[in-house]
Amino acid sequence: MRIAIINGPNLNLLGSREIDIYGNEKFEFFFERLQKNFPNASLTYFQSNVEGILINELQQQSLENDALIFNPGGYTHTSVALGDTVAAINCPVVEVHISNIYGREDFRKMSHISAQCNGTISGMGLDGYTLAIHYILHLMGEKHT
Amino acid sequence: MRIAIINGPNLNLLGSREIDIYGNEKFEFFFERLQKNFPNASLTYFQSNVEGILINELQQQSLENDALIFNPGGYTHTSVALGDTVAAINCPVVEVHISNIYGREDFRKMSHISAQCNGTISGMGLDGYTLAIHYILHLMGEKHT
Amino acid sequence: MRIAIINGPNLNLLGSREIDIYGNEKFEFFFERLQKNFPNASLTYFQSNVEGILINELQQQSLENDALIFNPGGYTHTSVALGDTVAAINCPVVEVHISNIYGREDFRKMSHISAQCNGTISGMGLDGYTLAIHYILHLMGEKHT
Amino acid sequence: MRIAIINGPNLNLLGSREIDIYGNEKFEFFFERLQKNFPNASLTYFQSNVEGILINELQQQSLENDALIFNPGGYTHTSVALGDTVAAINCPVVEVHISNIYGREDFRKMSHISAQCNGTISGMGLDGYTLAIHYILHLMGEKHT
Amino acid sequence: MRIAIINGPNLNLLGSREIDIYGNEKFEFFFERLQKNFPNASLTYFQSNVEGILINELQQQSLENDALIFNPGGYTHTSVALGDTVAAINCPVVEVHISNIYGREDFRKMSHISAQCNGTISGMGLDGYTLAIHYILHLMGEKHT
Amino acid sequence: MRIAIINGPNLNLLGSREIDIYGNEKFEFFFERLQKNFPNASLTYFQSNVEGILINELQQQSLENDALIFNPGGYTHTSVALGDTVAAINCPVVEVHISNIYGREDFRKMSHISAQCNGTISGMGLDGYTLAIHYILHLMGEKHT
Amino acid sequence: MRIAIINGPNLNLLGSREIDIYGNEKFEFFFERLQKNFPNASLTYFQSNVEGILINELQQQSLENDALIFNPGGYTHTSVALGDTVAAINCPVVEVHISNIYGREDFRKMSHISAQCNGTISGMGLDGYTLAIHYILHLMGEKHT
Amino acid sequence: MRIAIINGPNLNLLGSREIDIYGNEKFEFFFERLQKNFPNASLTYFQSNVEGILINELQQQSLENDALIFNPGGYTHTSVALGDTVAAINCPVVEVHISNIYGREDFRKMSHISAQCNGTISGMGLDGYTLAIHYILHLMGEKHT
Amino acid sequence: MRIAIINGPNLNLLGSREIDIYGNEKFEFFFERLQKNFPNASLTYFQSNVEGILINELQQQSLENDALIFNPGGYTHTSVALGDTVAAINCPVVEVHISNIYGREDFRKMSHISAQCNGTISGMGLDGYTLAIHYILHLMGEKHT
Amino acid sequence: MRIAIINGPNLNLLGSREIDIYGNEKFEFFFERLQKNFPNASLTYFQSNVEGILINELQQQSLENDALIFNPGGYTHTSVALGDTVAAINCPVVEVHISNIYGREDFRKMSHISAQCNGTISGMGLDGYTLAIHYILHLMGEKHT
Amino acid sequence: MRIAIINGPNLNLLGSREIDIYGNEKFEFFFERLQKNFPNASLTYFQSNVEGILINELQQQSLENDALIFNPGGYTHTSVALGDTVAAINCPVVEVHISNIYGREDFRKMSHISAQCNGTISGMGLDGYTLAIHYILHLMGEKHT
Amino acid sequence: MRIAIINGPNLNLLGSREIDIYGNEKFEFFFERLQKNFPNASLTYFQSNVEGILINELQQQSLENDALIFNPGGYTHTSVALGDTVAAINCPVVEVHISNIYGREDFRKMSHISAQCNGTISGMGLDGYTLAIHYILHLMGEKHT
Repeated sequence: MRIAIINGPNLNLLGSREIDIYGNEKFEFFFERLQKNFPNASLTYFQSNVEGILINELQQQSLENDALIFNPGGYTHTSVALGDTVAAINCPVVEVHISNIYGREDFRKMSHISAQCNGTISGMGLDGYTLAIHYILHLMGEKHT
Repeated sequence: MRIAIINGPNLNLLGSREIDIYGNEKFEFFFERLQKNFPNASLTYFQSNVEGILINELQQQSLENDALIFNPGGYTHTSVALGDTVAAINCPVVEVHISNIYGREDFRKMSHISAQCNGTISGMGLDGYTLAIHYILHLMGEKHT
Repeated sequence: MRIAIINGPNLNLLGSREIDIYGNEKFEFFFERLQKNFPNASLTYFQSNVEGILINELQQQSLENDALIFNPGGYTHTSVALGDTVAAINCPVVEVHISNIYGREDFRKMSHISAQCNGTISGMGLDGYTLAIHYILHLMGEKHT
Repeated sequence: MRIAIINGPNLNLLGSREIDIYGNEKFEFFFERLQKNFPNASLTYFQSNVEGILINELQQQSLENDALIFNPGGYTHTSVALGDTVAAINCPVVEVHISNIYGREDFRKMSHISAQCNGTISGMGLDGYTLAIHYILHLMGEKHT
Repeated sequence: MRIAIINGPNLNLLGSREIDIYGNEKFEFFFERLQKNFPNASLTYFQSNVEGILINELQQQSLENDALIFNPGGYTHTSVALGDTVAAINCPVVEVHISNIYGREDFRKMSHISAQCNGTISGMGLDGYTLAIHYILHLMGEKHT
Repeated sequence: MRIAIINGPNLNLLGSREIDIYGNEKFEFFFERLQKNFPNASLTYFQSNVEGILINELQQQSLENDALIFNPGGYTHTSVALGDTVAAINCPVVEVHISNIYGREDFRKMSHISAQCNGTISGMGLDGYTLAIHYILHLMGEKHT
Repeated sequence: MRIAIINGPNLNLLGSREIDIYGNEKFEFFFERLQKNFPNASLTYFQSNVEGILINELQQQSLENDALIFNPGGYTHTSVALGDTVAAINCPVVEVHISNIYGREDFRKMSHISAQCNGTISGMGLDGYTLAIHYILHLMGEKHT
Repeated sequence: MRIAIINGPNLNLLGSREIDIYGNEKFEFFFERLQKNFPNASLTYFQSNVEGILINELQQQSLENDALIFNPGGYTHTSVALGDTVAAINCPVVEVHISNIYGREDFRKMSHISAQCNGTISGMGLDGYTLAIHYILHLMGEKHT
Repeated sequence: MRIAIINGPNLNLLGSREIDIYGNEKFEFFFERLQKNFPNASLTYFQSNVEGILINELQQQSLENDALIFNPGGYTHTSVALGDTVAAINCPVVEVHISNIYGREDFRKMSHISAQCNGTISGMGLDGYTLAIHYILHLMGEKHT
Repeated sequence: MRIAIINGPNLNLLGSREIDIYGNEKFEFFFERLQKNFPNASLTYFQSNVEGILINELQQQSLENDALIFNPGGYTHTSVALGDTVAAINCPVVEVHISNIYGREDFRKMSHISAQCNGTISGMGLDGYTLAIHYILHLMGEKHT
Repeated sequence: MRIAIINGPNLNLLGSREIDIYGNEKFEFFFERLQKNFPNASLTYFQSNVEGILINELQQQSLENDALIFNPGGYTHTSVALGDTVAAINCPVVEVHISNIYGREDFRKMSHISAQCNGTISGMGLDGYTLAIHYILHLMGEKHT
Repeated sequence: MRIAIINGPNLNLLGSREIDIYGNEKFEFFFERLQKNFPNASLTYFQSNVEGILINELQQQSLENDALIFNPGGYTHTSVALGDTVAAINCPVVEVHISNIYGREDFRKMSHISAQCNGTISGMGLDGYTLAIHYILHLMGEKHT
């Protein structure tokens, strides 16, 4: 089971930026623990601040993985092109948001990505990524829980 | 660890209604399996079609449980009163939607409940409830994953 | 041919409330005449002011009748949950409004129910119920007119 | 009892156009049956694709009939002038739509005509015309049902 | 002079919920003091979280009292049906909100109830109920102030 | 000085329709008086209920007259095509409305025609036509007042 | 016949400001000619840039004149209070705009004043004032034209 | 206890203007009675039609009184500046509207002032001022009902 | 290969109207050249200012041609009925606009016709018609380019 | 070089009002320092809470100065008339806001003044006035920095 | 004649992605045929998923070509910056969309690019590129058709 | 004092693009003069057309400078991600726009960046950058005018 995690703009700042909203753990440390917790899954991780490079990566990773976990960050609310990409690729995609995007500014309540994904997890911190893997494993028919 | 699942209007029809959207399993059967999968958690389940009885139940169950899982069904998009209730109670609440509400009609894209919850899981079928319990157990500091 | 008439909030006040809009006949008296006019149909009548009890009744009556006539009253314009119920049940539903809802306040011009019904009759007073039965009988293939 | 039926744009295509929405019967055949079913009423039928000719006809027919049945077709949603005409004439007007206009595109949910009519019937196929005559006969005090 | 106070959803939590907004006094204690302060008035008090039961109560209490004081809580902003009820009943109704609803979230700035009431008092805490009684007594011609 | 008056839909009903809004004089009688009051001007009058025939007439009359007076009736609020015509022709056009369109329904407050005209007169009854001629004579440099 | 002309903000700049829109004649010179053209009418003229002083003046002048001509300038589009004043006073008021407000920026297309006036004249330059007096004289039953 | 009442535009017309909405008593007479009813309070009264003078007065009176009662009249719906003033001053302010502003035109349903006040009383006629004083006395800790 | 070109309102003015936007060639001359450039195609041309006559012509020409080229002019933005007609007919329809409708007023940016056509060409002057024929020939499988 | 600073409503409260937003320095003290810092410029300062007096002052000062600095305060968001004034006068105008108006309430994000000014400075505290003078000096061709 | 074709995000997936909407031919194969069909034109082709690289390319290619053909893909609906680029460069630009963007989701109906282009072709599949070259050749005065 | 200037899309075209709006000086020449005018400040300059590279640069430069000056160009109005970046970094950021964005198209009046900056300067040409440095120096406590 190969799963790629793709993070969007400003998520490279995790652990140092607005800690009250996003927590104080760097994603790299969390990712190590995540891999350990799912030894049977082969996880990869990619981050970019560039919308088009995220498009490239989604296209490419969808060919090399069984499922994708995508946190589009600030592009969630403005990118038709990323929504098109998720619609165009064939493997399952789970959208994850660390903070509760529905409880923040109005412009964050809308997502161009959600309608194209299998599902969305929002507001559960880094746990959102863990839950997304649980869901993918289950969806793929592997034994879990 | 006591967790109550509270389902809103029309969710008593699960298994017989619009099977392509909601799946063909009755919630009662799923609930039995759920309890078995989390033997250390004490789960209870309640469903009502009446908005005000859901308010009553949320108020009462918040006193008797460590956390709530709430699927507000069609009231998601129209009920300020249920949002007020979730804001007023003290225990954690996770919002779950079986279908991907962001990929359906426009009026389903807005929730009066999400902003008041700890987090939201949408579009992952009945798995959404399983994931919500994982999250709650983690949040409460119990060992999991 | 079994047909259930389900009336929503404040329709228990018919005959005494805002007579210039709704007429001065109590629904019970009208219902008696209606049953006499359609001796081959078995009519039942239910009214509630509670949204969720209307959901319960629509669910239950759809199993026990060949068709439903539904006047959602003030819930017409606000209830996604009632619209979901009508979409979920299998028997035909005809929406009836006594007054011409399109000729009143702006917020009355929109219905969450209409899109899920077979048809809508508005502005024809209590005759709307009579016409709905005519339509159902025709739809069901019984000889009429 | 003289009643005129006035149909608007594209309704001359009935029976050949988008049969899944509008049915496969030409209006002329339906009209013959309709006249037979109401032998005591004198029915006339007019169709035009031209907005202004419909205005002319509504003005003229209102002088020569006891009531009008009007299906404004695609002008329903855009014509203030037709709404003005219905408001200006003195005989009763019933609005009929063959398809359920509330269950189609958003721009079809609004009518400039409804507020000026006695009532509206939508979504009941050609039966809508039959029901409209029933209603008019009742309104005019003739024995029916 | 008989006056009924009818409180809507979540107002049973007064004294324990969001104390900085709603104050820390339970309504029952306040009600006792209120009755003492107006010995010549006969006060009754009713609370429900169920929209339809509030409709029932407004209908019934309007027959048994000289005036009503109504705090519709979260239904203020969403209930056409409650607005219809207030319009349908004949005795005076005063709308009271404990918090200043105009100074909170945008969706709280609109009321389906206000237009149908004699008047509205907002933002004055429990004093709002006291003032409403003063007003009703004056309106009814009793000597005060 | 040649001036054509062009009236739009339903204005042929003047004198018989909604007399409280439009007055009780037929336009033909008023037109006779108007011609007598301006003996040095050559007036012509045209009315149609058909949008496209009004376009034809505006195009043609603009070639044969020094100025046009145009009351677009109900097409005021919906016709981009008539606005285009007024923009395309070269002679001055004055828009006249008999009733005060700004004091009626919201949809009457907007005009596709006004921006393309030299000026607009609204709410002054049939006097509006008289004033329009005064203005045109002045604009054209003839002595008046 | 006494008529007062009341001009709003920036109209004291007429003749020097944006000459292509407003013309190059100072209002004082035009006013002199206007008085000469209507020797039987007693005209007065007032201008202020202060909204509240315009309210004072409208209130006072309505008591001392048979009719008012009001050009509210930039307050046209923003002043509920001036609209209230026009509604409150008893003598006829004609609204005049020198430029065609419907052919300029969007925010100029809306008027809080028009609905409360007898009529509106827009886009006819200073002639608008002349036409307004013609109208008032006619309205008041004096012989003219 | 010093309390100033500040009334906005057109409220000097009370007693003569639109009597069905505002009643037929001049404010000066009411004010005399008001002072008599609250002999322990020192009341002052100010009215202006000028927005900026109301700003001056609010600023000044807030320094010389314990609380203000403010009826902003037509400026309620358009004045950000008055809202800023109420936010800037330190003494309590109660907003009073004589008519039920929520039951009138749409543009009257919104207030720039309410969010900055302690509370709002609407629709209770001149009694609104009486109630406001009751509230202020209570708020200030003086003994009353 | 038979192709009909149908032009809407004001397009009969081509060559004389607003030459900077629409060019200075009359359509008749252009049409002659067009026919010469496509000797294997049989072209016909029709223009009307009347919406309903355009509906008639679209219905009729769709039966007699292999494809239609339609420039709906000012009806583009307002006519649901013309959109219905294009949806109802079976032969391919290409929408052509001479000017760039997306670069003009806001109300020109929306088309009721585009969604029902095979394709749209906008802003390319009379060349748009040439390109439309190229496309139709290609679509119909004839050799070109 | 003569420059006038014109401040709008509530800016006379600077130094005492909402100090966290506006700072704690009175404008008069700041103005003295400002004059000292620009010894070659002749500065004048004016403040009023009255919209119309600001119009008067802008008109007058534009004749007596080389440039104006204008802080319209709360009138920024509501005054078409002030925007008209700035458009009508001929000398350069720089708009200054002490607080960052784009980071506050939604209704503060829009300005009727900005489009008519040479430029806007927002959010830089009293420094905004200093910067505006720098800009004006540069614009006027005087040597600086 | 040098012409560059610039394709935006996800258009590298042509031939494999959502074949029912976009067809099953890879753009590279189509491009070869296109070059053969226009032997006298020198065509180049560029694709990127990155918005800013498209800006770079448009700027650079506009200097090296006689005209550009631009398919902005999903950036059509969200990119002010790309619209700015097209406005800033001097050579002609034709916008091409393979699918009919007006017949898909609402958010695809709006383009930030169209207003800045010479023209737009939408819904004609890959033929749109062929037609764009025809148009450019004609525009540039070369013999064609 | 280290200050970085970061310019967004199309600002590399300064001096050659739309000279009437943006002026005819290349930024590189201006930057040289700017550095000379502030010899005590260490200035750096960066430009990119790629949104994500601007995010990278803002993140990196915020670590290496005391303050940033940011002109987001066309991304101003569409980029939530850039707004997030400005919110996430710790050093002061001043937003500069060369043209008056409030006096251009409507979609340019809104900024996702302004609310997150210390302040905004708009419409003052390249002087805006000079003023921004003045402001930063003052903010940082260095001696200046």
